[in-house]
Amino acid sequence: MMKIMVIHGPNLNLLGTRETDIYGSLKLKEINNSLKVLAKELGVNISIYQSNHEGEIVDLIQNAGDYSAIIINPAAYTHTSIAIRDAIAAVKTPAIEVHLSNIYSREKFRHKSVIAPVALGQISGFGPEGYMLALRAAAHISNAKKNRPKKKTS
Amino acid sequence: MMKIMVIHGPNLNLLGTRETDIYGSLKLKEINNSLKVLAKELGVNISIYQSNHEGEIVDLIQNAGDYSAIIINPAAYTHTSIAIRDAIAAVKTPAIEVHLSNIYSREKFRHKSVIAPVALGQISGFGPEGYMLALRAAAHISNAKKNRPKKKTS
Amino acid sequence: MMKIMVIHGPNLNLLGTRETDIYGSLKLKEINNSLKVLAKELGVNISIYQSNHEGEIVDLIQNAGDYSAIIINPAAYTHTSIAIRDAIAAVKTPAIEVHLSNIYSREKFRHKSVIAPVALGQISGFGPEGYMLALRAAAHISNAKKNRPKKKTS
Amino acid sequence: MMKIMVIHGPNLNLLGTRETDIYGSLKLKEINNSLKVLAKELGVNISIYQSNHEGEIVDLIQNAGDYSAIIINPAAYTHTSIAIRDAIAAVKTPAIEVHLSNIYSREKFRHKSVIAPVALGQISGFGPEGYMLALRAAAHISNAKKNRPKKKTS
Amino acid sequence: MMKIMVIHGPNLNLLGTRETDIYGSLKLKEINNSLKVLAKELGVNISIYQSNHEGEIVDLIQNAGDYSAIIINPAAYTHTSIAIRDAIAAVKTPAIEVHLSNIYSREKFRHKSVIAPVALGQISGFGPEGYMLALRAAAHISNAKKNRPKKKTS
Amino acid sequence: MMKIMVIHGPNLNLLGTRETDIYGSLKLKEINNSLKVLAKELGVNISIYQSNHEGEIVDLIQNAGDYSAIIINPAAYTHTSIAIRDAIAAVKTPAIEVHLSNIYSREKFRHKSVIAPVALGQISGFGPEGYMLALRAAAHISNAKKNRPKKKTS
Amino acid sequence: MMKIMVIHGPNLNLLGTRETDIYGSLKLKEINNSLKVLAKELGVNISIYQSNHEGEIVDLIQNAGDYSAIIINPAAYTHTSIAIRDAIAAVKTPAIEVHLSNIYSREKFRHKSVIAPVALGQISGFGPEGYMLALRAAAHISNAKKNRPKKKTS
Amino acid sequence: MMKIMVIHGPNLNLLGTRETDIYGSLKLKEINNSLKVLAKELGVNISIYQSNHEGEIVDLIQNAGDYSAIIINPAAYTHTSIAIRDAIAAVKTPAIEVHLSNIYSREKFRHKSVIAPVALGQISGFGPEGYMLALRAAAHISNAKKNRPKKKTS
Amino acid sequence: MMKIMVIHGPNLNLLGTRETDIYGSLKLKEINNSLKVLAKELGVNISIYQSNHEGEIVDLIQNAGDYSAIIINPAAYTHTSIAIRDAIAAVKTPAIEVHLSNIYSREKFRHKSVIAPVALGQISGFGPEGYMLALRAAAHISNAKKNRPKKKTS
Amino acid sequence: MMKIMVIHGPNLNLLGTRETDIYGSLKLKEINNSLKVLAKELGVNISIYQSNHEGEIVDLIQNAGDYSAIIINPAAYTHTSIAIRDAIAAVKTPAIEVHLSNIYSREKFRHKSVIAPVALGQISGFGPEGYMLALRAAAHISNAKKNRPKKKTS
Amino acid sequence: MMKIMVIHGPNLNLLGTRETDIYGSLKLKEINNSLKVLAKELGVNISIYQSNHEGEIVDLIQNAGDYSAIIINPAAYTHTSIAIRDAIAAVKTPAIEVHLSNIYSREKFRHKSVIAPVALGQISGFGPEGYMLALRAAAHISNAKKNRPKKKTS
Amino acid sequence: MMKIMVIHGPNLNLLGTRETDIYGSLKLKEINNSLKVLAKELGVNISIYQSNHEGEIVDLIQNAGDYSAIIINPAAYTHTSIAIRDAIAAVKTPAIEVHLSNIYSREKFRHKSVIAPVALGQISGFGPEGYMLALRAAAHISNAKKNRPKKKTS
Repeated sequence: MMKIMVIHGPNLNLLGTRETDIYGSLKLKEINNSLKVLAKELGVNISIYQSNHEGEIVDLIQNAGDYSAIIINPAAYTHTSIAIRDAIAAVKTPAIEVHLSNIYSREKFRHKSVIAPVALGQISGFGPEGYMLALRAAAHISNAKKNRPKKKTS
Repeated sequence: MMKIMVIHGPNLNLLGTRETDIYGSLKLKEINNSLKVLAKELGVNISIYQSNHEGEIVDLIQNAGDYSAIIINPAAYTHTSIAIRDAIAAVKTPAIEVHLSNIYSREKFRHKSVIAPVALGQISGFGPEGYMLALRAAAHISNAKKNRPKKKTS
Repeated sequence: MMKIMVIHGPNLNLLGTRETDIYGSLKLKEINNSLKVLAKELGVNISIYQSNHEGEIVDLIQNAGDYSAIIINPAAYTHTSIAIRDAIAAVKTPAIEVHLSNIYSREKFRHKSVIAPVALGQISGFGPEGYMLALRAAAHISNAKKNRPKKKTS
Repeated sequence: MMKIMVIHGPNLNLLGTRETDIYGSLKLKEINNSLKVLAKELGVNISIYQSNHEGEIVDLIQNAGDYSAIIINPAAYTHTSIAIRDAIAAVKTPAIEVHLSNIYSREKFRHKSVIAPVALGQISGFGPEGYMLALRAAAHISNAKKNRPKKKTS
Repeated sequence: MMKIMVIHGPNLNLLGTRETDIYGSLKLKEINNSLKVLAKELGVNISIYQSNHEGEIVDLIQNAGDYSAIIINPAAYTHTSIAIRDAIAAVKTPAIEVHLSNIYSREKFRHKSVIAPVALGQISGFGPEGYMLALRAAAHISNAKKNRPKKKTS
Repeated sequence: MMKIMVIHGPNLNLLGTRETDIYGSLKLKEINNSLKVLAKELGVNISIYQSNHEGEIVDLIQNAGDYSAIIINPAAYTHTSIAIRDAIAAVKTPAIEVHLSNIYSREKFRHKSVIAPVALGQISGFGPEGYMLALRAAAHISNAKKNRPKKKTS
Repeated sequence: MMKIMVIHGPNLNLLGTRETDIYGSLKLKEINNSLKVLAKELGVNISIYQSNHEGEIVDLIQNAGDYSAIIINPAAYTHTSIAIRDAIAAVKTPAIEVHLSNIYSREKFRHKSVIAPVALGQISGFGPEGYMLALRAAAHISNAKKNRPKKKTS
Repeated sequence: MMKIMVIHGPNLNLLGTRETDIYGSLKLKEINNSLKVLAKELGVNISIYQSNHEGEIVDLIQNAGDYSAIIINPAAYTHTSIAIRDAIAAVKTPAIEVHLSNIYSREKFRHKSVIAPVALGQISGFGPEGYMLALRAAAHISNAKKNRPKKKTS
Repeated sequence: MMKIMVIHGPNLNLLGTRETDIYGSLKLKEINNSLKVLAKELGVNISIYQSNHEGEIVDLIQNAGDYSAIIINPAAYTHTSIAIRDAIAAVKTPAIEVHLSNIYSREKFRHKSVIAPVALGQISGFGPEGYMLALRAAAHISNAKKNRPKKKTS
Repeated sequence: MMKIMVIHGPNLNLLGTRETDIYGSLKLKEINNSLKVLAKELGVNISIYQSNHEGEIVDLIQNAGDYSAIIINPAAYTHTSIAIRDAIAAVKTPAIEVHLSNIYSREKFRHKSVIAPVALGQISGFGPEGYMLALRAAAHISNAKKNRPKKKTS
Repeated sequence: MMKIMVIHGPNLNLLGTRETDIYGSLKLKEINNSLKVLAKELGVNISIYQSNHEGEIVDLIQNAGDYSAIIINPAAYTHTSIAIRDAIAAVKTPAIEVHLSNIYSREKFRHKSVIAPVALGQISGFGPEGYMLALRAAAHISNAKKNRPKKKTS
Repeated sequence: MMKIMVIHGPNLNLLGTRETDIYGSLKLKEINNSLKVLAKELGVNISIYQSNHEGEIVDLIQNAGDYSAIIINPAAYTHTSIAIRDAIAAVKTPAIEVHLSNIYSREKFRHKSVIAPVALGQISGFGPEGYMLALRAAAHISNAKKNRPKKKTS
């Protein structure tokens, strides 16, 4: 059975309590439950992690070798973490970058993702639904592997 | 029945014949057919347009008043057309920006979208599947309208 | 009788319905009517056009040879259209640039006009009244032609 | 009776003698006379000041509390004086920024006005006629106060 | 017989009447006549177009599939049109970029061509003679096709 | 008889042996021979030089007083040598800048020529054929001297 | 009793041994003792932490929910940690940013704090005394809560 | 008895009446009274000045030779006045920079202080309380003079 | 008899007491005495002024109409005062800019003079001797007026 | 016996499996073995660490007090970690920065090392051999300590 | 026997006499002697050159065809010489860039090497010992040639 | 007897024939004669050189060890030659930088001198008289050596 790793970056554990005008009122647990429901429906296996530590996220990605895809919301590390970028570029598993808010309509420093150039694709601005779209995309990619364009490194 | 407008920007009419290493070998017609199949499945009505003319795209968007959502791949105009941006900001219909390739792993001038800040969200890098994700997102938004966060103008 | 051309750029046809907090609730037709009333009062002849197409605006300007002045609100094209700039520099008719909103208190990309350096002058921030001021300025210029400073090209 | 304050910034006292190819040969006194004639015609009361001192201009603006509008040509201070900007933002009276020459066709450092974002509007490039347009605009604003959009602070 | 497409961009229809100090006093028609004479001499077939519309130029390039070369003076669109750039990159026909004036001795914004990176080569500063050089280059390339270096896309 | 000076800049003596994917496999001697053949055909006299030394190139240009034109490929000095630029600006002989490769599709630092603003024109991207086009242009200019636009200094 | 959290960022554990010309010779322990003495005097309860790990600092801030204020010297993370910024913006507790040295008279990269825009205020350059001022400010804020201006998020 | 000079920069005389959402509703006189009360408590002597004139502020600082410290809120001059910076660097008295609002959460041009590099320290964002903190800091510095780190000039 | 105006800018009244490692230990009075001695020797009349007020310096320059030259050390205003620049450009008297220290070996913001482009020339880095050189230059210019190159305005 | 600490930064544990075209096929363990062999030969004692966590690397460096030198390959943290930079500046042990690949021929963001200014020296581009060169350099430095230039802090 | 070329760039002939606080007190001759001793030990043949002339250095590199490696300290030309860069890229011999001082802790313009992207590797900051490390690296590379990664051109 | 070296940079040998509107009609020989006359008058010995070769100018400066001062007009090399800068910094002789034209009123790239930070001072804009002022300054410095501020290196 196809395995997919989901990584929530720093401060996402506060979801639903924090700046609800930007991030919505759904709690992380509720999003995770929706993901599990959809995973079942799509017939995939998901493992979900959250960490505030850049190093831990690097460790997680390094262990994603036997997963079909990584879904990652790097949150604050989106804009600065070359370590996460390098980890994604180092492992073979394709990564899908998700952002709850539309990062392009926020502060200027949030417009630039250092992760995006090594991700397979990016989904931003759809709130929790973005994770569901990412899960569908991950399932689609894994099924369609033969026709998939190669992931670019730089 | 919910209506969704799909707009393909300049040069997308060449899809499948042009730079297939970047854009894949599927023709635009085939993508449109897949969109129609999924639209039927989701129970939505879609109208699909392609234009190489910035002004025509502005005209199209101005007429999207009674649609539930716009799915737009602004292609080359992504990076320069404030006229398209202003048209999206002017109409009430939420817009979803789609890119076939991962624009963040290409030339530097493609990293910046002037459309993104006024779009509801952006999906990039998933090839033709990106349109399908956008269609699902559009259907989801329209159904969930009450809880949807407001579109930001700047 | 002195002839003056008025050109409204992209999305101005939506005036009064679009982002009324920025652009006010007056419709374009109402502004045009006020312009006609004032034109009569000042004894000048005006022709009014609106287009969402950059190329059409270039065509219009190229045909302004026997007009005394052009009043142009280039809207979104203000910030990017070198084609419109070149058309204004190519014809002999002096151009007056008008903006409804104060472009200098909006998004950063709206602060820069590529048209301004070849315009005779610029009026911004006065809402519909700005067109009236422009019409008075145009009439004044045409009457005072002998003392008018030369239009600079770059 | 409606009162309007007119402030001429540094070096404008030399008008008509200084760089006449840029600023024209009219003396400041002649412009002031024209302003007084038009003010009478429009039924408004004007007070006219000139100063080379940034601090004095700040003092003048602080005392404009019971005026309907300020017409200011900040000249050289246009590009650097945050003190004048802050004074305009601090008082309630709307300010109209006037420039004799087209500042956008001159040296690059003259393209940026730090005053403009807090002014109601800007008129540039029409020579002495620019003051007349500003006076008309000021009279118009005061009459139309109810419908006037709020002045933005930043 | 070898076919070559010539595209004149916006405002070039005014040639000979517009800013003759920069662009010379030859009319576009006269240049086209010289091109036809030389084409005959070189034994090639030329089709000549002029348009002020970016979208029309994109359309023209998309139809250049069975031409041996495109000679294009993108004029104002040189500096901003990614749509024209993408059209050139999409078709197989090599493109030669021509400018009448030396764009590197004019305003700073004219120094940057977004077309150049996808063109085979660029000729600028030779006035109408530049088109003749381009035609010779086009004929030479087509004849020497086997040894020609590949066109780069980015 | 009309005299034309040809100057090959640094490292061009390695042509045909160096980075043949960028510069082609023709040796400098072969290009020089082709130039001599064409010169004969056009009835002009050419003197050809190559140097790796910036100062020597400046010396050469200073001695071009009685030549009708200079054809120069400044190679690496294109991007940094104000001394060569000043020498060209100082002598009366018009200069034509040639580049074998398309410098606009290479590393960013090669996009900027400090020579171009004082050259009559620039030809880039046509390989050895670029020198032939330059020679034709030089012959044309010398013949058409009366109508030639003045060389700009800055 | 009012509770205040004090967080010392990376390398502050070396205080008094490290670069004493910049940071002074007082050890962290001595500063903490002074803080405790002043806390007692002001009748507030303080908890003091030090960490070299960005993730741990994020964890600490997330747990500051029932504190009246956070006093934080983010040290090296001041200039790069969006994760710490987001944690501060996410919790309700107002944060006071302290720097021992005057960061504006040091290397350029230290002039920019990504934390400052979400902090209530910043105190820099007063050495260990800065912490004492911050503690007084924290006590003052908590007492004066009703009149306190809202913390801005961006 | 220790003497401390307090300088309020341009527009601070309007405090309590101007933009109260940013600066609070306390009048300058009330802040000055609080300062005097605290000064008495701390056993120091304070002289308080306000000026809208850059030159006057320079004059004041030049006369601070026999004061123990200067507390200065340079307001608008914070961002541009090298004259005030040079005056502070020229006199021996240490200067403490105070800002009522958090200048780092406001417009971008307010993020940069040209005064800060020559000040002893900076306190920003605490409203009127910032002056009280500055007064305590000034008193502390004067008492602790022997251990005080040297003021840096650049 | 030829008249020359000498203007010392802000903080120069502190000379000899202020930052003597940068500016030397000579007092302004001593420099002025040396200037008077040399003036006598050269047979010119000098008037010497010092001011910390930008507006006063503008006033002084405006009154230099019947002087042969202005020698000005704009000090801190060198880098920001467009008002002083415009005053110099407005009057006919040529201005010589003097700096005691080498402004190009100090902080980066001191490298840029907004005055220099409108000055006749600049002398920097020679300490008090720089004023003597300037006085000789001024005397030389006045004597050699006929051959003097025109002062450039921008 | 002289002690040397070797620190491998994030993702270096994947060496030999990750992007072997850039980093080579040698595993980290093999490099470490070579280092131990050379250490023995040079008569020095080495301790080797690897971590993906910035904070752990800071901790390691803080404990390097009784080592003669640190050899560090900061990998991804090279470009962003001011915390690691400050830790190196804080301890007395000289640090040698090593990079396997030539960071100057890779993506632009890898060209800038924030560590380099506080390192003793940098070795990049020699693959695993770079560590051997660093070890020799470390041994040399420790032996030659008396003549060693002081490590610079900024 | 393996041959290695060593090139010392401009001003290195002054070594030991010039700015000894930056470059140390060893003379170039002494470094060359150490290099010869080590070369003998490693069994390689070295030829050593010094030149202040950019063109001569280009000539030297062009003649390095039958050498196994070039060791080059480009000194001042490091930051500007594209001619030297192109020469290195043109020849087949791998180049090792050496700097005596740590160029990353000096003036900003010294941080950028235009040579580095085409060098095999760079060694900086180790004083004369850097040449010894480079010689060892050169010997190692030549021995290990089969496994050596390809030199990149851009 | 005091010795002074005068170095004229590239293209100055063309003086009086080249761009006489910028550089005047005096030939280099005439300037040199005036210098010799003044040298005699001041009782100093001068040696005058001109070169178009950067390397030769470096050689000249390296040999200026027993001169009291260098007067150098680096011409085009002013803006790019770090080699000349380093040579000046390396020798003990103070250097005076001279420019005939006012480099601050010309093209932007001429505003920046890489030589200035290591020169004692700079004189620009006075035409040939600038050399005379420099010679006086050189003589003055040498006489006043004891009080001379130290030459800064960076």
